[in-house]
Amino acid sequence: MIVRDFDEIIKTDRDRVVSDARWTSVRMLLANDGMGFSFHITFLEEGSEHTFEYKNHFESVYCMKGTGSITDLATGETHAIRPGVMYALDKHDRHILRAEEELVMACCFNPPVTGDEVHQPDGSYAVPKEA
Amino acid sequence: MIVRDFDEIIKTDRDRVVSDARWTSVRMLLANDGMGFSFHITFLEEGSEHTFEYKNHFESVYCMKGTGSITDLATGETHAIRPGVMYALDKHDRHILRAEEELVMACCFNPPVTGDEVHQPDGSYAVPKEA
Repeated sequence: MIVRDFDEIIKTDRDRVVSDARWTSVRMLLANDGMGFSFHITFLEEGSEHTFEYKNHFESVYCMKGTGSITDLATGETHAIRPGVMYALDKHDRHILRAEEELVMACCFNPPVTGDEVHQPDGSYAVPKEA
Repeated sequence: MIVRDFDEIIKTDRDRVVSDARWTSVRMLLANDGMGFSFHITFLEEGSEHTFEYKNHFESVYCMKGTGSITDLATGETHAIRPGVMYALDKHDRHILRAEEELVMACCFNPPVTGDEVHQPDGSYAVPKEA
């Protein structure tokens, strides 16, 4: 059994805390935990806007705190984000995520993120090394 | 892109809301969503105690609200549960989960739950039909 505490990770396990332009992600589970998915708590800064396209991953994102919106760039449709709303990128959907207030999101990735990925210019993560 | 709202599911999509003795689980994502994992928001009643052993699944559980504890029945070790604590059953660990206050948990299952499982007497879910 793995037990991890968000507050302890923030204080003592900074390798699990990854930041990029106006977002921070705390990796509670990564590929080497052997669960077959990774699990992250991700913060998006108030007023920020992000274009992502996880070409090589499925991702689900559950809003725990904050408000914003997501636009599906294939359809142009925009959905409000507030606590309790989840979106799942079952078609590796290219999208824009906007944080009106700071967003705090619980994210699952399949295949699991290894922790070594960087966002590529197209908004994707590279294919996992294991693939 | 799949977008689902917890509040709407509670009101209009009761097939996604599953209850058993002193717990309720809202299935935000199931196997047929094609993500390769399922994602549930699960409530465990204040004062309740549960013995689970997911022999056929990996499960991670992130505490969003409430306090309690988990005991690993292989080692006898007990860990406090509070918001920000996650446990991951990477060895299909048989365990007792106790809710001192109502617990609200974000849960990921691999393989994904189909929605048709019932807890078996040993605390497990059956092997998914797809397997």
